[in-house]
Amino acid sequence: MDNTVIITDKKDNVGIVVNSSGLPKGTVLDDGTSLIESIPMGHKVTLRKIGDGEDIIRYGQTIGFAKGRMEAGEWVQESKILLPTPPELESIPLPAHRELQLEPLEGYTFQGYKNPDGSVGTKNVLGITTSVQCVAGLAEHVVKKIKRDLLPKYPNVDDVVPLTHSYGCGVAIHAPAAIVPIRTIRNIITNPNFGGEVMVIGLGCEKLRPEDLIPKSPVKKNSKEDLKNSSILYMQDESFQGFDEMVQGVMKMAEERLEKLNRRKRETCPASELVVGMQCGGSDAFSGITANPAAGYAADLIVRAGGSVMFSEVTEVRDAAHLLVPRTINPTIGKALLDEMKWFDDYLMQGQVDRSANTAPGNKQGGLSNIVEKALGSIVKSGTSPIVDVLGPGEKIRQKGLTFAATPASDFVCGTLQLAAGMNMHVFMTGRGSPYGLSAVPVIKVGSNTKLSKRWFDLIDFDAGEIASGEKSIEEMGWELFHMILDVASGKKQVACDILGLHNDLVLFNPGPLT
Amino acid sequence: MDNTVIITDKKDNVGIVVNSSGLPKGTVLDDGTSLIESIPMGHKVTLRKIGDGEDIIRYGQTIGFAKGRMEAGEWVQESKILLPTPPELESIPLPAHRELQLEPLEGYTFQGYKNPDGSVGTKNVLGITTSVQCVAGLAEHVVKKIKRDLLPKYPNVDDVVPLTHSYGCGVAIHAPAAIVPIRTIRNIITNPNFGGEVMVIGLGCEKLRPEDLIPKSPVKKNSKEDLKNSSILYMQDESFQGFDEMVQGVMKMAEERLEKLNRRKRETCPASELVVGMQCGGSDAFSGITANPAAGYAADLIVRAGGSVMFSEVTEVRDAAHLLVPRTINPTIGKALLDEMKWFDDYLMQGQVDRSANTAPGNKQGGLSNIVEKALGSIVKSGTSPIVDVLGPGEKIRQKGLTFAATPASDFVCGTLQLAAGMNMHVFMTGRGSPYGLSAVPVIKVGSNTKLSKRWFDLIDFDAGEIASGEKSIEEMGWELFHMILDVASGKKQVACDILGLHNDLVLFNPGPLT
Repeated sequence: MDNTVIITDKKDNVGIVVNSSGLPKGTVLDDGTSLIESIPMGHKVTLRKIGDGEDIIRYGQTIGFAKGRMEAGEWVQESKILLPTPPELESIPLPAHRELQLEPLEGYTFQGYKNPDGSVGTKNVLGITTSVQCVAGLAEHVVKKIKRDLLPKYPNVDDVVPLTHSYGCGVAIHAPAAIVPIRTIRNIITNPNFGGEVMVIGLGCEKLRPEDLIPKSPVKKNSKEDLKNSSILYMQDESFQGFDEMVQGVMKMAEERLEKLNRRKRETCPASELVVGMQCGGSDAFSGITANPAAGYAADLIVRAGGSVMFSEVTEVRDAAHLLVPRTINPTIGKALLDEMKWFDDYLMQGQVDRSANTAPGNKQGGLSNIVEKALGSIVKSGTSPIVDVLGPGEKIRQKGLTFAATPASDFVCGTLQLAAGMNMHVFMTGRGSPYGLSAVPVIKVGSNTKLSKRWFDLIDFDAGEIASGEKSIEEMGWELFHMILDVASGKKQVACDILGLHNDLVLFNPGPLT
Repeated sequence: MDNTVIITDKKDNVGIVVNSSGLPKGTVLDDGTSLIESIPMGHKVTLRKIGDGEDIIRYGQTIGFAKGRMEAGEWVQESKILLPTPPELESIPLPAHRELQLEPLEGYTFQGYKNPDGSVGTKNVLGITTSVQCVAGLAEHVVKKIKRDLLPKYPNVDDVVPLTHSYGCGVAIHAPAAIVPIRTIRNIITNPNFGGEVMVIGLGCEKLRPEDLIPKSPVKKNSKEDLKNSSILYMQDESFQGFDEMVQGVMKMAEERLEKLNRRKRETCPASELVVGMQCGGSDAFSGITANPAAGYAADLIVRAGGSVMFSEVTEVRDAAHLLVPRTINPTIGKALLDEMKWFDDYLMQGQVDRSANTAPGNKQGGLSNIVEKALGSIVKSGTSPIVDVLGPGEKIRQKGLTFAATPASDFVCGTLQLAAGMNMHVFMTGRGSPYGLSAVPVIKVGSNTKLSKRWFDLIDFDAGEIASGEKSIEEMGWELFHMILDVASGKKQVACDILGLHNDLVLFNPGPLT
């Protein structure tokens, strides 16, 4: 039996149980600690006595305070930990200006699709945007038909994806917060995987005007004859007599774009063209010591190769604000990071909750006692690079290097916002297991523990659990993940959700009211 | 050329242009008014001089105040109208207690599916509920397979519908407002069209526990062997080795339910078992004089027959609060109506907007100048019956008669909440045109003008435009709609969206924050 426990910092006074069946009462650990009760996999054991109110330390950081006195070898259950207050944003000092000093990593490439705007795609997808929820059913109906009747004629095109959502009407389009969903839709249209081939299905009476989504596109009053010159099709256009004509109109517009997309060819591109969105969902206590460190190591490699990496999920970094602000590259970026956290604090307060509303029952079953412990494990996926930029939700990425893209932690909301930011690769870490998949961008799913990765053999792409068992180092797994990212970006390797055809719809973040 | 204008109350000082091409400058109306400019269809013409600041009156009510002086025969554009403040909720007197006095309507029946809980379905559908967004892709994947491989074996079952949504995790599940999405999902499960056959696909680590959605169902730890005794299937269940086994698990659970649903038979049911949700979307100036009055007349017939009717859309009744409160049946219900409006006022204010954020560009193009005019036309669909109850968003209907079910006006959000309330028939009025469709409940789409109803011949089920042209009376059209409701509820007549297979996803109302 593997009676290892993992500690990540010598200050830690708790360790994580690795054994997949947990450890029984009486087990003696390598450091001589004897377990006074049985402890499940992923959960914490005290490594020495902890006095009432004393700090409980993991990752070298305080994750909470002891509620009552604890013996060595005790199971640190959630009920025994008092949640600390989050770092006070106002009291975090802003960093000095500094130069980026990275050890360059050269010679890594992938086979991507170069776009006219300079971006590089990793898939070749026709994205059909919708301006309003009312046409979502119609868009899905037509896309089925396009996939059946047209797509087989264009073998270089990977997929046709309806970008449907529940925004566009019945919403307060002039509320201050409306900027978030609007720019999200606008920016998704220009995701590199859509190759610059834009088409928007509108209704006609909606609040969100398709013309405002594609301001640089030639805008004309649509008619059936005039489809070639526009990227917008209104279903209420008076030239459409009934549903079949609408369907034909969409099919025709789609086919023109499929013809163009079909001529795209993969070319050798430097790894600096990668734009990788990092995210975790269904985390457990291993996430912070296996999957996220491996992702963080790969993130550092991508940044050193000149590429772009995003990490996100405000409520999962909030308790580590004091660790992240010093990593920003200048006071402006430091301030931008603090502003995004302040915005989210206020947003949560308006709903009468705080960042502790983040943790899910499964996190806790997986050994994550509270949001502080979750956040400290979550930020590890950002690696160690300086933070060069901060994006508001739905904004487009502006810099090479490591960017904090502020988003909620809700999985598909975060993925949707990273897609809008322009990611061309997605890496998703999970401990409890999630069948997460997106159709627009390849998603590499990384399992934090071997037990899950084995059981979900056809859903998990990469088992980072080998780090916990000591079979592989973080460095080795980081390099393996980096190579997998390049292979998937090149189309050489298909990810699990693409093989299964398992994809989730996009979910917009609308902090404004419905009407 | 038809130079009619419509006025609905003798106090009106504006009329609505009926002619489908509008009326040119110089046209002389029946009352002698000469048009001093051309006016499009559906727009308002002044019927006498209106002084600066004077009331502009439609439906016998003030819809705004003149910005500057207007001549007779002038086009009343939006820019010429000042928006009034909404009725002050505090100053609206509560009604006295009173007895319901309705002229009974007997002898009308439909062929419905009687359920064990006493409700009656109009369709026979297997609804597959999801507890969390993470399994939505999987649910849709499996439902495709069920429809292909299983559904053909059970010809009495109309459809299999995945009840997917973006709630369940990544949300503040303990926020005060979380009650709304949670009870919505819980109540949708018991919609009469699902015949009491419940199944929930959960992930395992999510915040929204499937056990809390079906509290009366036998709850067991699931295993592949134990599916018969439970209605919940967790994808993280350790007995599932990979995706295929999950799919097989869902298929097996679905087939057991399909077998039972397949034994359901239509029986003669009194019209009092109808639960009709009334809604409008993409309204124009005709909505309030054709489609909504016809729907209102039909609503009165259903209420007289002992059935239930709901109307909704808080921002579209807000400006008519002073007309609705006196229609409530006692002070408690009157107060409940005011409370829902107050809640929505506060909700909008939190987002820094008010009820005027409701109107869409298409409403205005269709002649609806502002939210007051829209609301006065909107409430007409409630008919004239007393309001016997008021539901909060997502609550289940409790009374026969006319209920105000408070919802946002956002079309699919309103439809989803009326579905949760238990509607078994849906009537949707539109002037601009919407391809609105739901898969769980038949939707009769009523066009407010013949121009639209003709152009969208295969999308609109009922042309109420004949009222504007004078070909039919509101009473005649109301009776026709009532008969169509009975025919569709009986399965004798299929609605347009079901013939086309054109259905929109449900959209939850979550006034609480994401995390």
